[in-house]
Amino acid sequence: MENPNIGQEIYDLCARMFPLCRSITGDGVRETLKIIQEYIGQDDIRLNIHEVPTGTEIFDWTVPKEWKIREAYIEDESGKRIIDMKENNLHVLGYSVPVDKYVTLDELKTCVYTEKNQPEVIPYVTSYYKERYGFCMSQNQLDSLTEGTYHIYIDSELFDGSLTYADVVIPGETDEELMFTSYTCHPSMANNECSGPAVLAALMRYVKQLKNHRYTYRFVLNPETIGAIAYLSFNLDQLKKHLKAGIVLSCVGDDRDYSIVHSLYGDTLADKSLFNVVKTRDKYTEYSFLDRGSDEREFNAPGVELPVVGFCRTKYGKYPEYHTSDDNMDLVSPEGFKGSYEVLTRWIDCMEWNRYYRVTVLGEPQLGKRGLYPTVSKKGSYDEVLTLKHLIAYATGKNDLFDISELIKVPAYELIPMVDKLKSNALFEEM
Amino acid sequence: MENPNIGQEIYDLCARMFPLCRSITGDGVRETLKIIQEYIGQDDIRLNIHEVPTGTEIFDWTVPKEWKIREAYIEDESGKRIIDMKENNLHVLGYSVPVDKYVTLDELKTCVYTEKNQPEVIPYVTSYYKERYGFCMSQNQLDSLTEGTYHIYIDSELFDGSLTYADVVIPGETDEELMFTSYTCHPSMANNECSGPAVLAALMRYVKQLKNHRYTYRFVLNPETIGAIAYLSFNLDQLKKHLKAGIVLSCVGDDRDYSIVHSLYGDTLADKSLFNVVKTRDKYTEYSFLDRGSDEREFNAPGVELPVVGFCRTKYGKYPEYHTSDDNMDLVSPEGFKGSYEVLTRWIDCMEWNRYYRVTVLGEPQLGKRGLYPTVSKKGSYDEVLTLKHLIAYATGKNDLFDISELIKVPAYELIPMVDKLKSNALFEEM
Amino acid sequence: MENPNIGQEIYDLCARMFPLCRSITGDGVRETLKIIQEYIGQDDIRLNIHEVPTGTEIFDWTVPKEWKIREAYIEDESGKRIIDMKENNLHVLGYSVPVDKYVTLDELKTCVYTEKNQPEVIPYVTSYYKERYGFCMSQNQLDSLTEGTYHIYIDSELFDGSLTYADVVIPGETDEELMFTSYTCHPSMANNECSGPAVLAALMRYVKQLKNHRYTYRFVLNPETIGAIAYLSFNLDQLKKHLKAGIVLSCVGDDRDYSIVHSLYGDTLADKSLFNVVKTRDKYTEYSFLDRGSDEREFNAPGVELPVVGFCRTKYGKYPEYHTSDDNMDLVSPEGFKGSYEVLTRWIDCMEWNRYYRVTVLGEPQLGKRGLYPTVSKKGSYDEVLTLKHLIAYATGKNDLFDISELIKVPAYELIPMVDKLKSNALFEEM
Repeated sequence: MENPNIGQEIYDLCARMFPLCRSITGDGVRETLKIIQEYIGQDDIRLNIHEVPTGTEIFDWTVPKEWKIREAYIEDESGKRIIDMKENNLHVLGYSVPVDKYVTLDELKTCVYTEKNQPEVIPYVTSYYKERYGFCMSQNQLDSLTEGTYHIYIDSELFDGSLTYADVVIPGETDEELMFTSYTCHPSMANNECSGPAVLAALMRYVKQLKNHRYTYRFVLNPETIGAIAYLSFNLDQLKKHLKAGIVLSCVGDDRDYSIVHSLYGDTLADKSLFNVVKTRDKYTEYSFLDRGSDEREFNAPGVELPVVGFCRTKYGKYPEYHTSDDNMDLVSPEGFKGSYEVLTRWIDCMEWNRYYRVTVLGEPQLGKRGLYPTVSKKGSYDEVLTLKHLIAYATGKNDLFDISELIKVPAYELIPMVDKLKSNALFEEM
Repeated sequence: MENPNIGQEIYDLCARMFPLCRSITGDGVRETLKIIQEYIGQDDIRLNIHEVPTGTEIFDWTVPKEWKIREAYIEDESGKRIIDMKENNLHVLGYSVPVDKYVTLDELKTCVYTEKNQPEVIPYVTSYYKERYGFCMSQNQLDSLTEGTYHIYIDSELFDGSLTYADVVIPGETDEELMFTSYTCHPSMANNECSGPAVLAALMRYVKQLKNHRYTYRFVLNPETIGAIAYLSFNLDQLKKHLKAGIVLSCVGDDRDYSIVHSLYGDTLADKSLFNVVKTRDKYTEYSFLDRGSDEREFNAPGVELPVVGFCRTKYGKYPEYHTSDDNMDLVSPEGFKGSYEVLTRWIDCMEWNRYYRVTVLGEPQLGKRGLYPTVSKKGSYDEVLTLKHLIAYATGKNDLFDISELIKVPAYELIPMVDKLKSNALFEEM
Repeated sequence: MENPNIGQEIYDLCARMFPLCRSITGDGVRETLKIIQEYIGQDDIRLNIHEVPTGTEIFDWTVPKEWKIREAYIEDESGKRIIDMKENNLHVLGYSVPVDKYVTLDELKTCVYTEKNQPEVIPYVTSYYKERYGFCMSQNQLDSLTEGTYHIYIDSELFDGSLTYADVVIPGETDEELMFTSYTCHPSMANNECSGPAVLAALMRYVKQLKNHRYTYRFVLNPETIGAIAYLSFNLDQLKKHLKAGIVLSCVGDDRDYSIVHSLYGDTLADKSLFNVVKTRDKYTEYSFLDRGSDEREFNAPGVELPVVGFCRTKYGKYPEYHTSDDNMDLVSPEGFKGSYEVLTRWIDCMEWNRYYRVTVLGEPQLGKRGLYPTVSKKGSYDEVLTLKHLIAYATGKNDLFDISELIKVPAYELIPMVDKLKSNALFEEM
């Protein structure tokens, strides 16, 4: 599948999700899933929507109350709304309880959150596990407020509802699984995190159109942290048994860097395979697990310890717009999405071709008689077929495709056509 | 135990030992042990004094004759003593046999040892295993001597006596042992080696006042080389069975550097634990076993191969005053001793807290409900608890405290209060 | 054996082989073997000559027809021979079929090979596995040719004959084998490859004069690639069972560098032992298996995987004269040969002394009583015997001589006399 418009297509999907007010529970999550279902097409892949009731014990955690938010604003004495959630849903502190009060400027300041170091942005702030109300605005705006009475108003509700997540499993020839996850809980921020679900949706379509695939693919969309924990509490046995490699997608829409966040020890198949592809890009950064921050935390937690890594363009926390109103649709781009899509589909291809190969003959095969070696031998002849020779040399049945790639310093992705040729010539067999 | 005067206290103890004329056998050793016994307090810890008779076979070695030295001097023609052991006991070659002779200047020179590269110092020279007599003086003094007759006089004795060493074992909750050793054979040199026994004595008191401790502590004071070999020949089975880590103390009183001398392969618990502490200091040097020189040689010798490393401030052989009369009480300082004491007591603390910890819940624990996580979540919240999160992430039951420390790049010593907190919250259990 | 003329001796042998027209089959190979047999002396070592008939299946390959070449030249219209194989046997494309034709300049150019980047040299070109005819000349000469008719003439024959190789096995005290191989198929090029067989011949004489040797030595002379494959197809079981280390010699006559080409993973005894010697030279280059190019390819091929490395002075492909008429007797030198001979005979010595040694006593041996330690102990005494002390420290029975050499950073070759001394003193035993 070569789709020249794939970047734009993902960008547009991201743009559709951007305006929704999401949190770890509530209708924002449900709306997001609906948009994704529309994109992937009802007949092809149907998302399984799971609702986990408030109060459910999930490992060390409990599913919190569901949050419904209808309106949130602050009015000045003249009745002018100085901030209004309708304009930017970051203005309300996530999980705010209702309030309807007239307060002095000093009182107001006790419930307003700003980002002092970036005075022009609205920060993203939440209080999931302690009931309070609050507003977010730019430091500049706060500084400009004059003494007086302010009307603070939040029409919200915390009630026994449920936490929503979705998954879909696309069966392959074997029950060995590859998994992609991303999260659906952040409000209007483009890169973090409308980009992850958008790219994940595109990957579902990529897998669906593959003629055959060895791996079974699992796609998961959940609220961050609590949703991943919920997912794990219901699926850990299955994942422990079948998951070979998983990738958490976050911040995959900008065009500045490529990042891998390694697993606990950086030694799983997920690490070596994804890094093999990531490091073929012009620029990239390799982060250890100490730099984790998204749901790779949960998938690598003690007792869980699954082979899951993180993938980002510029990593969360490493770009200034992160968790502010500046993380908007200008920050992401069709080129950014295209790059992520390319890395991840190449990773899928590499994984599908990844085997322990062994040469079928004893000793160096005679490539000449198979038309794989120049018939005139002179200075430089050998170099023309060097990669092929290298690939053969290390195909001893003890190295997988990524091991060979590392040993011979050629990206796994570039070896695929050669492996194909050697298989066609009956020179390669799978262990 | 926080004792602000500990540096001065150890310095004073060192100063008491400094004037004694010690060798690998004899009363100097016995006097040294007596002073240490006084310091640690008879009622608290009683040193076991062992006397090994001359002629005893200890591994490949034999206990030599005991050496008694009463007087040693050189007089010029006028009867003036140009050197006298009473002024500095380095003036006599260690283990000199008696002599009472009148010699020419040229004859004199055949039995005088100097250090040509440091013309102003008296060098420290011995001849334990070949009977000879000799004197040590500065090169400058030797150069200043005029032709004439000199009276060389040594009143000493080599006789069937014994070699003296001491040890003490402070039992802990288990029979797993930690060991400290230092040596008692060098005459009047402060850093090498009055400092080692002095710090070791302070450590005995530190261990004694610990309320409870898992490890059994073994302290050994022996003449260097031959004493360590004697000790091993009597205790090897016990040490092979129970010793988990040992440290040889030498040159621990100056204030210029911190040094670790690694074991044979640098891969034992002693190496990883002591280095973990040493490398938190402002300055430090890591020496491989190729730079060994003190009794870590014996504890790592073929067939012995115990987990023992060396600890120094500036390492023996690496400072100019080493093995000369300049290694005096000006070279060591309360600050120098305090630094050694700090490193070694922290090492004890770390060892006592060192376990394979495992998180008691499945998945990431919810820190918030235990008051261990900020209730408002915004940019930077996560970083406040990062070390705690890291500690939890690697507490999978497969890493000990030092492994986790290396993995998360935080000194083990700093992790102790966090481990304590996690244990109090029933989130950590020991394997 | 100290032979001050060894370099000149090998050079002279090389010079005798240089003029012969060799290919992968034919009388050139046979003549080469005859010269070597003369050099080593009939009575001492007798080469076993093997003839493998055309058509024989050897692993994935088939022995090709034998090539006989009698004459090859190009005449211009005036009957002047512009090139003639008699002047340089590189002028004929290796394995050319016969031709006797009058052609235009344009037609001529289709069967002439040159090296554009080195316009003054005649390149070395072959076409073993596809029948064609051809000539090689310098680019300058080709450029100077004018329009006209040229007579191209090759009197050659491809017929059912055989492929020739030789080997000899010199039995040692055990059936563990060390192997040297080189190749006999290249026409008149000095470094690549008259030098390899010449040095190999000198090594046969070196081994022959050894009074006793633990290893059995195998020497192999074969046409490159196809000859090595033939050799392996007949000897693989034997080699798999007994070969401990092997070295392929190629380009061992110049004086610019020393090179090792590592085995598949660079982790065999051959790698660690040869590199131990190579890196003692003033200059050297370590190549990974990715830089292979001579018969180490075959000995490391999938399913073969023997402990075989390559040794060169300047590696094939890394010097400009490689595979051209400039690789002549001026490129190699007595000094160049002497250096190779030194490395390889030292390697033999090291291998013969290589054991897992263990100190016979428990703890540090007392060197003094054996006259191995100074009797007066002062600053610096210890350093005088430091290497000896290091050697003893790591002689725990778990390290071979090369392991110890790496651990203590002293070349294995320099440890031999010390091991000898320790064995004489009954302090070292072999495991």
